[in-house]
Amino acid sequence: MTDSPADLAVTGCTVLVHDEHERIGFREDATIVVRDGVIESVSDAATPVEARQRVDARGQVALPGLINCHTHAPMVALRGVAEDLPTEEWFNDVVWPVESNLTAKDVELGALLACAEMIRGGVTCFADHYFSMDAVADVVAECGMRAHLGEAFFTSQGPQGRAGSLEFALRRRGAAGGRITTALAPHAPYTVDDADLAATAELARTHGLPVHLHASENRDQTQVSLERHGVTPIEVLRRTGILDTDVLIAHGTGILDRDLPLLEEAGGRVAVASAPRGYLKFAWPTTTPVRALREIGVPVGLATDGAASNNSLDVWESMALTALVQKSATGDPRWLTARQALHHATLQSARAVGLGDRIGGIAPGRRADIVLVDLSGPHTQPVHDLAATLVHSARSSDVRTTIVDGRILMRDRELLTIDVPAVVGELAGRLPALLDRGHGRRVQEYDT
Amino acid sequence: MTDSPADLAVTGCTVLVHDEHERIGFREDATIVVRDGVIESVSDAATPVEARQRVDARGQVALPGLINCHTHAPMVALRGVAEDLPTEEWFNDVVWPVESNLTAKDVELGALLACAEMIRGGVTCFADHYFSMDAVADVVAECGMRAHLGEAFFTSQGPQGRAGSLEFALRRRGAAGGRITTALAPHAPYTVDDADLAATAELARTHGLPVHLHASENRDQTQVSLERHGVTPIEVLRRTGILDTDVLIAHGTGILDRDLPLLEEAGGRVAVASAPRGYLKFAWPTTTPVRALREIGVPVGLATDGAASNNSLDVWESMALTALVQKSATGDPRWLTARQALHHATLQSARAVGLGDRIGGIAPGRRADIVLVDLSGPHTQPVHDLAATLVHSARSSDVRTTIVDGRILMRDRELLTIDVPAVVGELAGRLPALLDRGHGRRVQEYDT
Repeated sequence: MTDSPADLAVTGCTVLVHDEHERIGFREDATIVVRDGVIESVSDAATPVEARQRVDARGQVALPGLINCHTHAPMVALRGVAEDLPTEEWFNDVVWPVESNLTAKDVELGALLACAEMIRGGVTCFADHYFSMDAVADVVAECGMRAHLGEAFFTSQGPQGRAGSLEFALRRRGAAGGRITTALAPHAPYTVDDADLAATAELARTHGLPVHLHASENRDQTQVSLERHGVTPIEVLRRTGILDTDVLIAHGTGILDRDLPLLEEAGGRVAVASAPRGYLKFAWPTTTPVRALREIGVPVGLATDGAASNNSLDVWESMALTALVQKSATGDPRWLTARQALHHATLQSARAVGLGDRIGGIAPGRRADIVLVDLSGPHTQPVHDLAATLVHSARSSDVRTTIVDGRILMRDRELLTIDVPAVVGELAGRLPALLDRGHGRRVQEYDT
Repeated sequence: MTDSPADLAVTGCTVLVHDEHERIGFREDATIVVRDGVIESVSDAATPVEARQRVDARGQVALPGLINCHTHAPMVALRGVAEDLPTEEWFNDVVWPVESNLTAKDVELGALLACAEMIRGGVTCFADHYFSMDAVADVVAECGMRAHLGEAFFTSQGPQGRAGSLEFALRRRGAAGGRITTALAPHAPYTVDDADLAATAELARTHGLPVHLHASENRDQTQVSLERHGVTPIEVLRRTGILDTDVLIAHGTGILDRDLPLLEEAGGRVAVASAPRGYLKFAWPTTTPVRALREIGVPVGLATDGAASNNSLDVWESMALTALVQKSATGDPRWLTARQALHHATLQSARAVGLGDRIGGIAPGRRADIVLVDLSGPHTQPVHDLAATLVHSARSSDVRTTIVDGRILMRDRELLTIDVPAVVGELAGRLPALLDRGHGRRVQEYDT
């Protein structure tokens, strides 16, 4: 605390807050004061505050910035190239052949476009699992977002796959003033063998790194794993030691009841990221078992996956769809209320990306990752239940202002750190080479 | 045709067009010329056009205006009042008690707010089924939208329910310069008895009116109908003669295989409106059987239902969700492609509201109901497949301009015919009386 002016004051807004039991509430007519990238206080709007920069947020709602807990940001370059296909054809016939053409420049431009989309949609942090991640890290440093980054690898790359993932994770950990955290990023149990996973778990323990990987993505993968190896993908994670690390599991729609005790008794902090839009689009028979995971205390974060399957990086939509799909999947309209959806979007997502103490809430001491939402549009009026309005009526386009670490990245819908037309223009020139599949190569084979 | 200047020219856009087999295509760099509310031509942008009003739509996509094929527009006043409840409690404990308080003024204000939301979301026409429909008709006349309106009735109202529905339908048919069409609007087979339905069918035939009602909304209703009456709701519609009228059936998620031949062999033009968001939210076990209906030639229009269940009147979202939910429900990712979704959104929805020859396409002779969509945002770039971009990446908030009968109702996101803050303010003052449930009344009992 100091008497000098604060860096930023967001004044006059309604603030989403958590009580001591993590219940969602709303504090009206409040001012958020930010200093050194951290929320210093949330006070009554009437309290005078000196600040070098002010945002008048009267009539707006301040939420913790949304967190995209599993994506492949640069894949926005492939948005719409592989439509209406089963998972195997999507991978083998389009996405993995195209990805064999990827250059670091493509990744950079894709990441820039993705960050622009996410900032405009109220996303302040994303967990990315892809290739050429130095390019992504540079984009994150430049555009001001927060990110949890991992360099993906397959066993087919040989030992240098894992080594490269480690080297990236160690070199970039804590970069961009702490906005970048890192993870080891084996692709999945069907593309990374047990020895490689076990070695990854050992590296994670040695270096204090978390692990981010795909596992039990769909029921087919679980079935094939059982047929070929006699174990589920989650059992593979257990026997290779991955569950003794802090592990973020993407999707998990193939998690079976027999997997739940393993997840509950895991030695590390286990979380799951759910991206329900793609599960519907691929016509997978099940979705992430959010209710069962809640019962065993495993946080479930919201995600979009990459735009080649999801078609957008709209975490707001993931929040609404998670509520809707969970009601449908459990047959229970009372389950996954709007407040529960907001809990997933805030504290559970923060935990999923290993930042449970730093982000996911608007409270003193947390990083100032804040979005301001305008509910004055006709589609969000009247407001009888603010949580329901936010989850079921508001849209990502209602986010007016996006702030990360106290820095304003979008103000009144104007992006301040990324030049979208320039990125779109430069990317367009590279697309023919990127999309060429005449070579017959692919980065990997999908054969669960 | 005439040499005098046209009324409106929309220049330089990409236009969604249908070929002679109704396949969706896109004509680039085109100009749409409008005269007397009708599309006169779609020509190359290079062709000189004289027009009294011009919209420069370079870089935008022109679509036929979206059609909300089943809603209760004034229920936006109840947005968020009945969350996370099973269907029966939603009706009996909240919605029907509240609706017993409704006044024509509430309906007027709700309809104004709803029309504002729909115009902003690219909806140019809606099929409404509610009470105090004169108030809705006046709002439609004033705000410039197109609508297909029916005064709802229950048998519990006695013969004057049906008589009032008829009187409204005859008096308002063709109003607002033809923008208003009307229907008889019995509520549903579980609230309108067979004699009343049969009398309604007779009135429909006598007066050349269509019928718009809820039927086979969910599987429970079908099951209860079978238990109590030995017939499905669709069989009730057949035996009462409703299927011999031009009938718009809302929801139909409880349609069984045995119902399909009845729908196929119906004497009237039968259509179904699907509003998938609410089916997920209520955790209904099935969705509208779109694929089976397609096989028997029954058009399926897109809808939102009322905002008390759907939380928005976002037909764009319904379009995307219809694609996603149909893939999931059929287990087939190849089914309901983006182009199929656009076919539902355009020609099938136009047919559903009885306007198959007048709207739903951008072609000479059709009414000039057009929306212009901006795809320059980062979430819609790059465009590899325009149909996929429209359905799966674009959002209702990407609609820049909405035109009905050649009149611009929203330009560059500015509403030109409705004052939203004034409506919201006036509605707010009426909400306490509207929401009062202390009286213990309800308009009807939900007991399928």
